[in-house]
Amino acid sequence: MQSVYWDDEVLKMIDQTQLPHHFEVITCHTYEEVANAIVTMKVRGAPAIGVAAAFGLVLGSKQIKTTGNAFHNDLMVIADELKKTRPTAVNLFWAIERIMDIARVNSHKDSSEIKNALLQEALIMAEEDVETNRNIGHYGQALIKNGDCILTHCNAGALATVDYGTALGVIRSAFAAGKNIHVYVDETRPLLQGARLTAWEMVQEGIPATLITDNMAGYFMQQGKVDLIIVGADRITANGDVANKIGTYSLSVLAKENGIPFYIAAPFSTVDFTLKSGHEIIIEERNPEEVTCVQGKQVAPEGIKVSNPAFDVTPCHLISGIITEKGVIYPPYEKNLMEMNKK
Amino acid sequence: MQSVYWDDEVLKMIDQTQLPHHFEVITCHTYEEVANAIVTMKVRGAPAIGVAAAFGLVLGSKQIKTTGNAFHNDLMVIADELKKTRPTAVNLFWAIERIMDIARVNSHKDSSEIKNALLQEALIMAEEDVETNRNIGHYGQALIKNGDCILTHCNAGALATVDYGTALGVIRSAFAAGKNIHVYVDETRPLLQGARLTAWEMVQEGIPATLITDNMAGYFMQQGKVDLIIVGADRITANGDVANKIGTYSLSVLAKENGIPFYIAAPFSTVDFTLKSGHEIIIEERNPEEVTCVQGKQVAPEGIKVSNPAFDVTPCHLISGIITEKGVIYPPYEKNLMEMNKK
Repeated sequence: MQSVYWDDEVLKMIDQTQLPHHFEVITCHTYEEVANAIVTMKVRGAPAIGVAAAFGLVLGSKQIKTTGNAFHNDLMVIADELKKTRPTAVNLFWAIERIMDIARVNSHKDSSEIKNALLQEALIMAEEDVETNRNIGHYGQALIKNGDCILTHCNAGALATVDYGTALGVIRSAFAAGKNIHVYVDETRPLLQGARLTAWEMVQEGIPATLITDNMAGYFMQQGKVDLIIVGADRITANGDVANKIGTYSLSVLAKENGIPFYIAAPFSTVDFTLKSGHEIIIEERNPEEVTCVQGKQVAPEGIKVSNPAFDVTPCHLISGIITEKGVIYPPYEKNLMEMNKK
Repeated sequence: MQSVYWDDEVLKMIDQTQLPHHFEVITCHTYEEVANAIVTMKVRGAPAIGVAAAFGLVLGSKQIKTTGNAFHNDLMVIADELKKTRPTAVNLFWAIERIMDIARVNSHKDSSEIKNALLQEALIMAEEDVETNRNIGHYGQALIKNGDCILTHCNAGALATVDYGTALGVIRSAFAAGKNIHVYVDETRPLLQGARLTAWEMVQEGIPATLITDNMAGYFMQQGKVDLIIVGADRITANGDVANKIGTYSLSVLAKENGIPFYIAAPFSTVDFTLKSGHEIIIEERNPEEVTCVQGKQVAPEGIKVSNPAFDVTPCHLISGIITEKGVIYPPYEKNLMEMNKK
């Protein structure tokens, strides 16, 4: 199963808003359709939106009728449009910049050659993403012992990436290695990516899992039923602070209180060396209706004010290790992230 | 607004499963109807189910056709049926025992006199509950400063009691005293008592409030936006451990991490001196459908396993104070609860 893939002239993606009820594949013919799919979270998960945006730029390049400098200016406008879709995950910006670099390097060629070069690069990125996740799985599964119960939050699975997943890649890898594991799946309000997507992936793979509401996670930690926590990341700053789905910070505090290791699993491209610490990360505030309505059903009274931050920042001192495709990085993060960057 | 009240020959209660969409009052003619209303959480909240069960026993006494010893045996059977409805909140058992004591004290009288004595006691209990909450409000509001932001969980409001509320009684009292306050309302999955009931009470009273999902609470604490936390209690053990709605423990840990005072507001009858610590409290496990469905809408895939503990236990060392109608009790709780019991 690939959640994002190129099919001849179009981008195809699993519509994640329809799961677990319907498995539906949408087709994007234009960059506007891709941008809309990112905003409405038909595609979500930091690595998946990165690759989707890369293909979005490829589609955008094909929509441009100009050549030369005008072509480049038009491409830049499209890149900016795609960057505006979501503010927190760094992979989006990283992926768009990587495609723009190819456009710059090939700027002396004619437009059709450039367009083809952009497509080739996006195809490489999609392939690399799966390879990256398999390596994250390889390094991460060494941290999981036979009999372990692993708690995860949101969906850092095959659906959040091109395939295989980051946090769920580690879990898949441990399961494939024959380890007897059990997964606690936080439902992850407001959009229920845990209940809808991670639970679905676990059922599909036959990995033993228990769905809980977010406020039950602490209870199971207190009961000694959680051996380790693994979640994904939307942005990691130079000091090792991690922006991830709202609720991640709370899990890290509960893990500390209960002496449970707390791991991040993410491609190394999630590290944003331009930001010193998590204080500099922009936290996306989303539509209040995501809180007041659940799957189209109103739950709260009219007239109540709502806050809906989509992410929070876990400070580096609460993180036991960051699992990347280059290996597991341990504190001190500032030094060790920098060193790993050279490898 | 009274959530539970006696109306001539019947017990009337606001159907809390219908809020905030419909304000519906149900009528119970028999103890079986009351037991069913407790099990299905048409009435919920520790003090409210205590008083509802007391009136349930009154209705049950009226259904008994026997006299003398047979009457008492029949009443005991009904008391046992009512005790089986929910296991965690102590008020249920306390209220039933208080009515049974009246039956025992009056056992020499004829059945119609006993039945009347039971009704009078239940009426006193309902009145006392409101008085108790107003006193909790009085003592608790002294802890709230002008400009404070208060976070609360679940519904410890007028709906959870006969009227006024415990945690929300404190908030009502601070607001009535003219303090400029703001309330963060945890939605409280799975049954959304925060989103459905507390948010509704706040809107009704015009108290400024913001609804958030449970996993956002830590984020707002980390941002310095929460000055204190006040929640209710379903059972308090002799050492000061507190069973309350699932998620309460997590809030107490997050409060400690962020240096935020964490208060319990509850009638003194919530203290169960027969239990030494929270380890002895039975935690109710409820129907998995409460997690997989939201207001009748399926959110999780078929085949996923679910856990649904309705309560957790907050250890006494994470509690800043217990606000009761007798005053605020501070650590060491074992000693101070015992002393307050003598007053």
